[in-house]
Amino acid sequence: MPDDPLPSWNDGSAKEAIIDFVARVTTEGGADFVSENERIAVFDNDGTLWCEMPVPVQALFVNDRLKALAPQHPEWKTTEPFKSMLAGDMKGVMAQGIKGIEQLAVATHAGMTTDEFNQIVRDWLSTAKHPKLNQPYTSVVYQPMLELLGFLRSRGFTTFIVSGGGADFMRVFAEEVYGVPPHQVIGSTIKTHFEMRGDSPVLLRDPDMDFFDDKAGKPVSINKYIGRRPIACFGNSDGDREMLMWTTLGRSDSLPSFGMIIHHTDGEREFAYDRQHVLSGQLDKGLDEAPGYGWVLVDMKRDWKVIFPTTARAAPET
Amino acid sequence: MPDDPLPSWNDGSAKEAIIDFVARVTTEGGADFVSENERIAVFDNDGTLWCEMPVPVQALFVNDRLKALAPQHPEWKTTEPFKSMLAGDMKGVMAQGIKGIEQLAVATHAGMTTDEFNQIVRDWLSTAKHPKLNQPYTSVVYQPMLELLGFLRSRGFTTFIVSGGGADFMRVFAEEVYGVPPHQVIGSTIKTHFEMRGDSPVLLRDPDMDFFDDKAGKPVSINKYIGRRPIACFGNSDGDREMLMWTTLGRSDSLPSFGMIIHHTDGEREFAYDRQHVLSGQLDKGLDEAPGYGWVLVDMKRDWKVIFPTTARAAPET
Repeated sequence: MPDDPLPSWNDGSAKEAIIDFVARVTTEGGADFVSENERIAVFDNDGTLWCEMPVPVQALFVNDRLKALAPQHPEWKTTEPFKSMLAGDMKGVMAQGIKGIEQLAVATHAGMTTDEFNQIVRDWLSTAKHPKLNQPYTSVVYQPMLELLGFLRSRGFTTFIVSGGGADFMRVFAEEVYGVPPHQVIGSTIKTHFEMRGDSPVLLRDPDMDFFDDKAGKPVSINKYIGRRPIACFGNSDGDREMLMWTTLGRSDSLPSFGMIIHHTDGEREFAYDRQHVLSGQLDKGLDEAPGYGWVLVDMKRDWKVIFPTTARAAPET
Repeated sequence: MPDDPLPSWNDGSAKEAIIDFVARVTTEGGADFVSENERIAVFDNDGTLWCEMPVPVQALFVNDRLKALAPQHPEWKTTEPFKSMLAGDMKGVMAQGIKGIEQLAVATHAGMTTDEFNQIVRDWLSTAKHPKLNQPYTSVVYQPMLELLGFLRSRGFTTFIVSGGGADFMRVFAEEVYGVPPHQVIGSTIKTHFEMRGDSPVLLRDPDMDFFDDKAGKPVSINKYIGRRPIACFGNSDGDREMLMWTTLGRSDSLPSFGMIIHHTDGEREFAYDRQHVLSGQLDKGLDEAPGYGWVLVDMKRDWKVIFPTTARAAPET
């Protein structure tokens, strides 16, 4: 099919469901037509647009930053969650709960200007490689999802990322890799404040969480940043459950909607995980609820011809 | 001039400065060319896009809501800032400081779902009229600024509102009136939380300020929502000072930039106010700093042919 908008998707119910939904909402005069300004699509990032195994990319960034900063913080050797993180003990880190994650985020993401932080992330991404796939992280993105982002945009959708990851972290690469500009990248944030350094204004990143964008936080951030309900939502874990609900259930505006969950079933080409993977990317409730709520499950092994782009770096869809 | 992009602007240095800047950043191959994704323009709302005198529109909304809710709150008769506000004593309200404003905002903007709040604002805007100009508030917007928004968009700019007003309040009308979609409207926010009501998800507006988007908060929210520095900034008061600085001073990326302040000089066609107007819309430091920082001052009386649209409702630029 020469004009196939989703060439990396195998024919089947998942691909059909996407193409059918897009056709319905873009057919003028049709019962399900949706005007362009309401065509909002939201995508999770970790495990939905790029690989989150064996650990989420930003956790590796935190790990590398901690190691680099450790000499200045001898107290980390005996203080949780730093002690566990420096020892590579992810279970020990997770045992500290969300508070521990926040402490790690703050210790590694604060104390510099926004410009300085962006450069730190850019430098890290340019050298760091995925431990098993041996590629830059910006290359272990899902080719079928890049095609989907481009397909939706070509049909008048505005595409947003809504992720538990750091907004500023993702914004460093999201435009080049996904074609999603910074103002359409929503994620967790820490506080910043404005000050003048001589004649130059700077924003300082403060050691204080602003918002953790996961689970029930996702509909909250969607309302805060986008200001309207999406009509399409793509996730892969129970962290995306509430934004899938917000997109597809009981809409007072009666707009048609679409929910999709990427199910990681391909242990050979990528990683296979769902209910048991409690550290991150757990998909448990979603598997049970998907049929009843009409959420389309993507079986990566069955539905995707390729997982990663064949070129070294994925070209952003335009 | 049949192809004049700014027909409501009189010829003069302000109009020339806009047209010259836009020409410079959009001329491919020129020294000051800026790619489209970096063409970010931010606009204050109160006093920059619509009339904020004799009191900001949202303060009148607060006033009307307070009166409607007062029977359920007998304690307001003796408690500040409610007592002053119900008595129409704005100086008494302002004497309570930012804390008092927040209390009023929370009392009138919380306790309902996001859908319900939007409907309340929509209903209010459809009947409320400006006390002196006797028109709906959405008609007392500045025609020259509507033209400017449209001109910038036609040259590849993305236009954002960055206002101390409530984001959710402005989003009800900003797309229709200004052509600015909800996700490009940044403003003050209160907290919300997600819950299920039977089978329908809702977002509840909580009585708790999330962010007050004024003064040094504006660069903070620009970074949080837009994620890159604007190259053009339009304001009218000292509340816009820090975002003007953030746009135009000491840029590490060396991009060209443009700052403009609307100076309310026309007491006949609109309202004349600047340094002395401490209640809202005060322009004091900005008048002193504009020449040194290269910010262009618009003299409304001299530079604008008309203030308001001649049609009852301003058509959004497309």
